[in-house]
Amino acid sequence: MQYLMTTQSDFSAIFNRLLTERAMDTSAVKHPVTEILENVKTNGDTALCEYTERFDRLPITTSELRITDKEIKDAYNEISPELLEALDVAAYRIRSFHEKQLPPNLHYEDDSGFELGYRWRPMDSAGLYVPGGTAAYPSSVLMNAIPATVAGVKRLAMCVPTPDGQLNPLVLAAAHKAGVTEIYRVGGAQAVAALAYGTETISAVDYIVGPGNAYVAEAKRQVYGLVGIDSVAGPSEVVVVADKDNNPTHIALDLLAQSEHDKMAQSIFITNDKEFADQVVNAVNEQLEILARKDIAKVSWENHGAVIVVQSWNEAAILINKIAPEHLELMVEESNNLFEDVRHAGAIFIGKWCPEAIGDYVGGPNHVLPTSGAARFSSGLSIFDFMKRTTFLKSNEQGIENVGPAAVAIANTEGLTAHALSISQRLKSLEK
Amino acid sequence: MQYLMTTQSDFSAIFNRLLTERAMDTSAVKHPVTEILENVKTNGDTALCEYTERFDRLPITTSELRITDKEIKDAYNEISPELLEALDVAAYRIRSFHEKQLPPNLHYEDDSGFELGYRWRPMDSAGLYVPGGTAAYPSSVLMNAIPATVAGVKRLAMCVPTPDGQLNPLVLAAAHKAGVTEIYRVGGAQAVAALAYGTETISAVDYIVGPGNAYVAEAKRQVYGLVGIDSVAGPSEVVVVADKDNNPTHIALDLLAQSEHDKMAQSIFITNDKEFADQVVNAVNEQLEILARKDIAKVSWENHGAVIVVQSWNEAAILINKIAPEHLELMVEESNNLFEDVRHAGAIFIGKWCPEAIGDYVGGPNHVLPTSGAARFSSGLSIFDFMKRTTFLKSNEQGIENVGPAAVAIANTEGLTAHALSISQRLKSLEK
Repeated sequence: MQYLMTTQSDFSAIFNRLLTERAMDTSAVKHPVTEILENVKTNGDTALCEYTERFDRLPITTSELRITDKEIKDAYNEISPELLEALDVAAYRIRSFHEKQLPPNLHYEDDSGFELGYRWRPMDSAGLYVPGGTAAYPSSVLMNAIPATVAGVKRLAMCVPTPDGQLNPLVLAAAHKAGVTEIYRVGGAQAVAALAYGTETISAVDYIVGPGNAYVAEAKRQVYGLVGIDSVAGPSEVVVVADKDNNPTHIALDLLAQSEHDKMAQSIFITNDKEFADQVVNAVNEQLEILARKDIAKVSWENHGAVIVVQSWNEAAILINKIAPEHLELMVEESNNLFEDVRHAGAIFIGKWCPEAIGDYVGGPNHVLPTSGAARFSSGLSIFDFMKRTTFLKSNEQGIENVGPAAVAIANTEGLTAHALSISQRLKSLEK
Repeated sequence: MQYLMTTQSDFSAIFNRLLTERAMDTSAVKHPVTEILENVKTNGDTALCEYTERFDRLPITTSELRITDKEIKDAYNEISPELLEALDVAAYRIRSFHEKQLPPNLHYEDDSGFELGYRWRPMDSAGLYVPGGTAAYPSSVLMNAIPATVAGVKRLAMCVPTPDGQLNPLVLAAAHKAGVTEIYRVGGAQAVAALAYGTETISAVDYIVGPGNAYVAEAKRQVYGLVGIDSVAGPSEVVVVADKDNNPTHIALDLLAQSEHDKMAQSIFITNDKEFADQVVNAVNEQLEILARKDIAKVSWENHGAVIVVQSWNEAAILINKIAPEHLELMVEESNNLFEDVRHAGAIFIGKWCPEAIGDYVGGPNHVLPTSGAARFSSGLSIFDFMKRTTFLKSNEQGIENVGPAAVAIANTEGLTAHALSISQRLKSLEK
C-alpha cells in the first residue's frame, strides 16, 4: 500500500504509476483464442462439446448443451425464500432505474422543407456471458440481463460454464428472473465464438455482454465488429473520499469490498486528515483478518492500495478526474461541491449510508462500469447498450431546391460526380 | 452485378454471399501497425517526423508538426465564396440537428430513501483523423467535428497527412468552421498513436474518431481501451428501394453515388417491377460513363452491385433487415409502412426528392454510419459518442435499512464478506 501526502516531492510520479500499473494484457492468449474461434466457426456444436469436455471436465452431447427448463425449476427449489426475495428486491430496483432510461425519439420539420429525426430500436438479440466457479455472481446476471429486456431485446441467450457439471442455482434463478430466454452450459472463448458465429444449437446474437477471464475478454475483442460488445472490462477500482466525521471501520470495509474482488483490484482512500488516515489504515489491517477472501484482498491492498492525504477537496477533485474511477464514494460535508467538480467517474455513491456494496446489488444503477480510467470516455452498462438509433430525412421539392445547390457545390469539389448529379438531375427535373 | 429474383431457387445462397463478401481484414497490417505504435509511444515527436518524411515525403522538424493559424487563414483565401457558403449551410444544418440530441440528465427520489440518477458530461478531449489525398473530404470533417463541439468537448485535435506537403484548403476551412482547436500534419497509424499516447507536441486525447485506410483502422483497433474509438468503418453500402413511379436515371445515380466511393462499396437496388429494374440497369450503364471516378464505380458495381426483384414490400423489409444497410432510400408509395418495418438501418432517406447525397452533405443527420450490417447493433456518429454518463446514488438511514438486508444476503452467498460487512456494520451502528 502506498501512503502518500500530496505535498511530498515525488507525489506526482508515484500517483501516475498507480494509474498505469494494472493495465490488462491479453496478448498471451491471442493465438489460442483465435484457434478456438476458428474451430467453433468451422465445427459448431462438435467443437463446443469437445471444449466443454476438455476445459470443464464434462462430457456432453449436442442435445445437452442447453440447460433445460426442469433444471432451472430445480434450481429454484434449492434456494431459500429469503434469498429469492433478496433477488426480487434487486431485480425490481434495477428494472425501475433502467426503465427511466428509455430515450425519446426525435421527429421534427424544419423551415427548409425537411422532416427529420431519429428513432431508437432495440437489437434483435443479445448474448450474456457469465463466468463459472467463484466468479459466478447472480447480481451480475441481473445487472447484465435486465437492461437488455427493458430495452426490448426479444432474444437473450446466456452462456455459463458448469465445471464438472456443477450448476449454480442462484445464477440460473437470477437469469430466469431477469428474462433470459435460453441458457447454455458452455464457457470460455468457445462460448463467445458460439454467440458470435452461431452453431447448430446456439443461434448467433447481435451483441455480447458480460465479464470473463482473459480468454473471454480476448475473444470478445476478436469478434468485435461482426457483433457488438460491451467494453472489455479490466480490473476494478474504488476511490473513497471521506473526512474525519466518519467511522474508520466503515471506510476500511468499503476499501476492502473492492480489494476482495481480485488481486488486481485497486482501492484508493483520499482524506484531508492525516490522523484519520492512520485510523483507517489500522482498521483495514484489522478487518482484513476476518474476510473469507483475505488472501485476495491482502494482495490487492498491498500491491495496489493507496492512501492519499490532500490539502483541500479541490485537490481531491483534480486527483479523482485523473483517476476517472469506476466507483467513487463521497463522504465529506461538502460532498455536493465535490460531486459537481467530478467530471469522470463510472458511478458515485454519496453519504455515509451509501456504501458501494449497496450499488453492487440493490441500488438500481448498473454495477457494470468502465474500469481503469475508461470513465473518461465511456459509461456504465445501460439500455443504450442494447438499442441503436436510425436517423431519417425526408425532403419535399422545396427541401432539395433550398439546400441542394450547396450539396452539389461540395460534391463537385470532392470529385464525386454521381453525388452531384443525383441532386442536380433532380433539380433539373423540377425546373421543367 | 447480380440480377436476382427472390423467386429463383438459389436466391438465398446468393443473397447471403452478398452480405458477407466484403468483410474487411486488417490482419495483414497488424504487425507493421504495432511497430509504428510502439515507436511513437517510445520516441514521440521524433518518430512522427521520421514517418512523415518516409510516408508523406515531407521532411519536417518538431516545430512544424502543427499547422499554423496563418496557414489556416491562407486556406480560406484560396476558397471561392460560393464554396465557403456551401460549407456554412452544411455546418449550420449539421449543428442544428446535433443540438437536438443533447440528452436529459436523470435525478429522482424514490420512496425507499434514495436519491439517484445520472448525469451526462462531455469528454475532455477528442482526436479527429482525416485521411489525405483523394479521400480528404471537408464534409467528413464537419460530420466528425461538429458533434464533438456540440457535446461540449473543449479540446479537439485533428491529424491529417499532407503528402508532399500539400495542404487541402477545404479541409482546413471545414475544421476551422467546425471548431477544431489544433491541427497536425501527421497521418496514418502514427497519427493514431500520437493521439492515443501523446507526444511532446500532441497531447493525448480521450477518444478518436474519423475514417482511414487499413493502417488507421487497425491502429484504432489496437489503441481501443486506452482511449475510446468510434466504430472501425468497413466499406460503405446503400440499399435503394423504388417502385416504377420513379425516374430510372435518378435511381441509377443514387446507386452510383455509393459505388463511386470505393471499389469495395456495395449498391443494392430493390424493386417490385422487373421492367423498371431493367430500365435502371440500363441507366446505370449509361451514367457510369460520365463519372470522374468511373473506374472505381465500375468495379464496385460489377463486383458487389445487385438488383433484386421482390414479390412484395413485405419481402423487401425482410431483406433490408438482413442487410441492415448503412444507407437506405425509400421511394415507394407505401414508404411509411416500409419505414415502420425496417428495424436495422444506419440512416433512411425518404421520398423522390431526398437522394442520399443530400444526407452526405447538408441534411443534418450524421453521415458517419455503421457499415456492413453493424446497424444491427450500433448507430451513426452523434453527440452520444462524445459524452458519457456518471450514475449516482445517495442513501439516507432509511434507504440502507430498507434494502441493506437484501444486499447483505446476496453478498454473503457470493462469498464477499467485506461487501456484506460494509452494509451490516452500518446497519448495526444505526441500531444504537
